[in-house]
Amino acid sequence: MDTLNTAQLWDRYNKYFLRAEHLGLSLDVSRMRFDEAFFDRMKVPFAEAFSSMALLEGGAHANADEDRMVGHYWLRQPSMAPSDDMRQDIEQTVEDIKRFARDVHDGAVKPKTADGFYVTLLIGIGGSALGPQFVCDALGTADDPMIVRFIDNTDPDGMDRILDELSDMLGQTLTVVVSKSGGTVETHNAMLEVKKAYEQAGLSFAEHAVAITCKDSQLDKLAQQDHWLRTFPMWDWVGGRTSVLSAAGLLPVALQGVDIDALLRGARECDVLTRGSSVLENPAALLAAMWHYAGDGRGTRDMVVLPYCDRLAMFGKYLQQLVMESIGKSCDRDGQQVHQGLTVYGNKGSTDQHAFVQQLQEGPGDFFVTFIEVLQHRSKASIMVSPDVTAGDYLDAFLHGTRNSLYNSGRDSLTITLDHLDARSLGALIALFERAVGLYAELIHVNAYHQPGVEHGKKAAGETIKLQALALQHMRTHADTAWTCQALADAIDRPEAVEALYHILRHIASNPDHGITIQPADTPALTHFQAS
Amino acid sequence: MDTLNTAQLWDRYNKYFLRAEHLGLSLDVSRMRFDEAFFDRMKVPFAEAFSSMALLEGGAHANADEDRMVGHYWLRQPSMAPSDDMRQDIEQTVEDIKRFARDVHDGAVKPKTADGFYVTLLIGIGGSALGPQFVCDALGTADDPMIVRFIDNTDPDGMDRILDELSDMLGQTLTVVVSKSGGTVETHNAMLEVKKAYEQAGLSFAEHAVAITCKDSQLDKLAQQDHWLRTFPMWDWVGGRTSVLSAAGLLPVALQGVDIDALLRGARECDVLTRGSSVLENPAALLAAMWHYAGDGRGTRDMVVLPYCDRLAMFGKYLQQLVMESIGKSCDRDGQQVHQGLTVYGNKGSTDQHAFVQQLQEGPGDFFVTFIEVLQHRSKASIMVSPDVTAGDYLDAFLHGTRNSLYNSGRDSLTITLDHLDARSLGALIALFERAVGLYAELIHVNAYHQPGVEHGKKAAGETIKLQALALQHMRTHADTAWTCQALADAIDRPEAVEALYHILRHIASNPDHGITIQPADTPALTHFQAS
Repeated sequence: MDTLNTAQLWDRYNKYFLRAEHLGLSLDVSRMRFDEAFFDRMKVPFAEAFSSMALLEGGAHANADEDRMVGHYWLRQPSMAPSDDMRQDIEQTVEDIKRFARDVHDGAVKPKTADGFYVTLLIGIGGSALGPQFVCDALGTADDPMIVRFIDNTDPDGMDRILDELSDMLGQTLTVVVSKSGGTVETHNAMLEVKKAYEQAGLSFAEHAVAITCKDSQLDKLAQQDHWLRTFPMWDWVGGRTSVLSAAGLLPVALQGVDIDALLRGARECDVLTRGSSVLENPAALLAAMWHYAGDGRGTRDMVVLPYCDRLAMFGKYLQQLVMESIGKSCDRDGQQVHQGLTVYGNKGSTDQHAFVQQLQEGPGDFFVTFIEVLQHRSKASIMVSPDVTAGDYLDAFLHGTRNSLYNSGRDSLTITLDHLDARSLGALIALFERAVGLYAELIHVNAYHQPGVEHGKKAAGETIKLQALALQHMRTHADTAWTCQALADAIDRPEAVEALYHILRHIASNPDHGITIQPADTPALTHFQAS
Repeated sequence: MDTLNTAQLWDRYNKYFLRAEHLGLSLDVSRMRFDEAFFDRMKVPFAEAFSSMALLEGGAHANADEDRMVGHYWLRQPSMAPSDDMRQDIEQTVEDIKRFARDVHDGAVKPKTADGFYVTLLIGIGGSALGPQFVCDALGTADDPMIVRFIDNTDPDGMDRILDELSDMLGQTLTVVVSKSGGTVETHNAMLEVKKAYEQAGLSFAEHAVAITCKDSQLDKLAQQDHWLRTFPMWDWVGGRTSVLSAAGLLPVALQGVDIDALLRGARECDVLTRGSSVLENPAALLAAMWHYAGDGRGTRDMVVLPYCDRLAMFGKYLQQLVMESIGKSCDRDGQQVHQGLTVYGNKGSTDQHAFVQQLQEGPGDFFVTFIEVLQHRSKASIMVSPDVTAGDYLDAFLHGTRNSLYNSGRDSLTITLDHLDARSLGALIALFERAVGLYAELIHVNAYHQPGVEHGKKAAGETIKLQALALQHMRTHADTAWTCQALADAIDRPEAVEALYHILRHIASNPDHGITIQPADTPALTHFQAS
C-alpha cells in the first residue's frame, strides 16, 4: 500500500477509529498499511476464532494439551464460571482478599512483635511476579499503606540484596509465597532463604507468611502444617501469565493499596466489549487482526511496545511474557510443526527515542510499533516549560512526531489511547491484551495456554543437579585425587558428561559451600578439581 | 553445521575457549555453529576493522558524519588522548569527581539547610541516564552513602512520582543535570519542574544543583549565571551511549559509593586485551565475529541477552541502546542504503525462563542468546535448599540446562562468564561490548557514532509544538467558536495539519493548562474543540 497524503490519512483515521467511551480507551490502526480487502479475507478465520473463544469462556478444555479449562475471564465475571462452586470460590476469594488487606491496613492483622505490616515481600516467578510487578509499579504512590518488594529468581545475591534492604523492617514484613504446586524451584529456594532470614532475626516465619497456592499442593500442606498466617487459593484453570486478576496478583496489589474492585471492573467492561463479533468494533479483535497483518500470521515482524508514560515502563516486559509464552509454540493444535512466535520488546517513550528508536527509524523494517498514549498527565496545573507549553505537551508531541516520522519511513504503527491511567483503565488494558492474544492464537491455530518449552530447560537443570551430587560423592571419597573433567566423567561412568562436569565444578569451586578447589590450567581439559 | 555429540562439543569448547585470567572473564562461543573456515573468510575484514579502530583511538575523525573524534577509550587511558590538554582534562575530571564525592560523603560539601546530601537525583535521558542506571543498579548495596534516583523523561506524572518519593528529603538531595548542550528538551523540562519543587519547598535549587555539560553550552552558562554548586565537563568526542565512564556516569556512581578507579581499571585492562589483532584471542573481536556469523552481517538474528544475575537485569536495556543506536543505520559509510540493525532484548535468567524463553525453545530460530554467568554468588556460605545443593547451584544449572536444550533445538548461544561481579569486572564488561560494537560496525562499514534518526522524531515534535501555538492563538481570538479540526486547519491555513490538530487538541483538552474544552462526537472529524 502506498504512503497516503495527509487528507487520505485523516479519512483513514476516522474510518477505523475505535472508541470505547465508557472505558476512556481508543484504538487507532490507520497507520498500519492493510488494504481494504484485508478484513474480508479475515472474515472466516475470525468467525472461527470468536466461536472458539465462546467455547473457551463456556468452560471447554481449551488448553487441550494439558486437558484443562481456561478461566481467567471468569475472574472478573464469576457468573460466567461453569459451576456454582467455581463462581463462589472466585467471589469469596475476592472478598477474602479485600477483607484481609483491610485488616492488615487497619492493624487488625499484625505481627506479634511490631505494630503492623508495612512491607509485602512477594516470592514468585514468571506469571506469579510479572503481573503484580507491573500493576504495583503502574499504580504505586508515595502514600501507599504498604510497599511491595519482589524476589523472582534463585540468585543468592539477588535475595541478599532485597533482604539487606528490608533488614530493619523484617518484623513488619508480610511474605507472600506464590506457587501453584509449591514445586517451582526458584520460589521454593527463595522461600527457604527468606525463612532463614526471619529466623536469624529471631522472628517466626510462619507468623509473617501467606501462601497463594492450589488446594492440597505441597505448599498448601506446608502452610497448614506450619500454621502460616493465611492461605489463598489458586486454580489449575488459571495460567500463570493470566493470573494477575487471581489471588496471585490481587493480593499483593490490594496490600499496596490498589482498588481491586476498579481493576476487576475495568477488565470486566473490556471483556464485554471484546466479546463482540464485529472485528472493526472490537478492539481486541482489531489488535489481533493487526498482529496477523503485520507479521503475515507468522510473526515475521516484532511488536515494539512504546508507552509514553513512566508508569507503564514495565508493560513491554509484561507483554513479552503474555504474548511470547502464549504464541511461541513449535506445534499447532493439530500437532503440525509451525514454530510460531511473536517477539515483543520495548520500554517507554520518549526515553527510548534516545536509545533504540534510532534503529526503528533507519534500520530494517522488521517490526511494528504499539504506541500507548495517556492523555491526562496531571489533574493539577503544570508549569510552562516554554511559553504556553507544558512538559506533557512535549511528551505527546514526541509520540506523534515519532509516529509520523516512522510512517514516512514506511514503518507501521498502531496507537492505544487511554484518557487517564487508573485501576479501571489498567484493568481494561490487561483484559484487552489477554483477549487479543487469545484471538490471535485461534487465528493461527495454536494453544495459547500451555508452555511445554519451559520444561526443557528445567529438566536439563534437574539432570545437572543430579550429576553434581554424583561428582561430589565420588570426589569426596577420593579426596586425595585432583581430577580432570574427563577422568572424573570416566570414573563415574558418565563419559558423555565431561563438559557438564566442567561447568558444575568451575561454578562450585567459586563458592565456599561444597569444599571443591580448582587448579587452573591453560584449557578446561587440563584444569583439575579436588575435594578438600 | 550438524549438531555435535558431547565429545565433539567438549573438543570444540576447549578449542575456542577464551580466558582473560587477570580480568576473571571467559568467553565461550562453542555453541555457535560457525564452520572451521569462517575465521579465514573474516581475516581481511577484521584486519581492516582493527586498523580502523587504531586510527579511531589515535584521534581520527571516526565519526565522519559529524566530523568528530571518538574518544571514549581515552577516558580510561588518558595517555592515549591525542593532545596534552585532553589528557589533562580527563585526568583532572576523574580527580575532581573523586574529590567532590569524598567531600559530599564527608560533609565538607553539604546543603545550607541540612547536615548532608544523602540522595542524588540525576536528570538526563538516553546515554546520560542508561549507563549510570545500569552501573548503580549493578553495584548498589544497602550501605551506600547515597541513594540515586533518575528522571529520564518529560512525563509530568513520572516526575511527580519521583518528587513525591523525595519530598521529605529534597533538602538533602543533590540534583545532577546532564546534557551536552543543555538543549535536550526532556532534560530541560525536568530541570524546570525539579527547580520548581525545590522552590516550593523553600529551598534554593542552585545550592543543590550540579551540571555536567560541554563548556560554554546553554546549560554551562545557566549554571555559572545562577551559581550552581558545581559543573563537570562533557566533551563532544564522547557520545551519549559511550559516556558511562565520563563525568556523566562517573559522578553519579561515585556519589553512590562505587569505586570508580576500579571501574576505570577494568575497562582499561579490557581495552588492552581487545586491541589484540588475533580474533581468537580477543574477546571483543570474537563477539563481533559471532554477531556477524549469527546475522550474516545483516542482523537477521536478534541478540537475546540473558544474565543469570539479578544485578545485571538492566544489562539488556543498556545494550539495547549501545548496540541498536550504534548499528541501526540506513546508510553505510559510503552513503549506500543498507538499513542495518541488530535487535537486542532480554532481562535476566532464570526469571525469563518463566516468560519468553518458551518462544526461544519452540518458536522461530530468529535469534541467538548471549548468556552471562557469574560464578561467585556469595562470599559467605549458603544454606542448602536440598541436600548438598544451594540456590546458586540451581541458578547455574538453569543457565546450562537452557544453553543445552537450546543447542539441541538448533538454537545458537554464546556465554560470557565472570568469576565475580564487582566494579572492575563491570568496567571490563562495559569496555568489552563497546569495542565489540566498534569492531562490528567496521565489519559492516557503518558509522557507529552518530544517530541521525533520532533527529526525525525530535524535528516532527518541534513542528507539533509550533502548530499547537498557532492553534491556541487562533482559538483564543475566536473563543466564541467551537472548531472541528478541519475548520481550524483551514482557518489557520494549514489544511494538511488536520489530523495533527486532532491529536494536539484531544491531548490539551484532557489537561487543565490551556483552557481548551472538547465536545465529543462519534468520529474525530465531528469532534469540536473550543477555547474557554
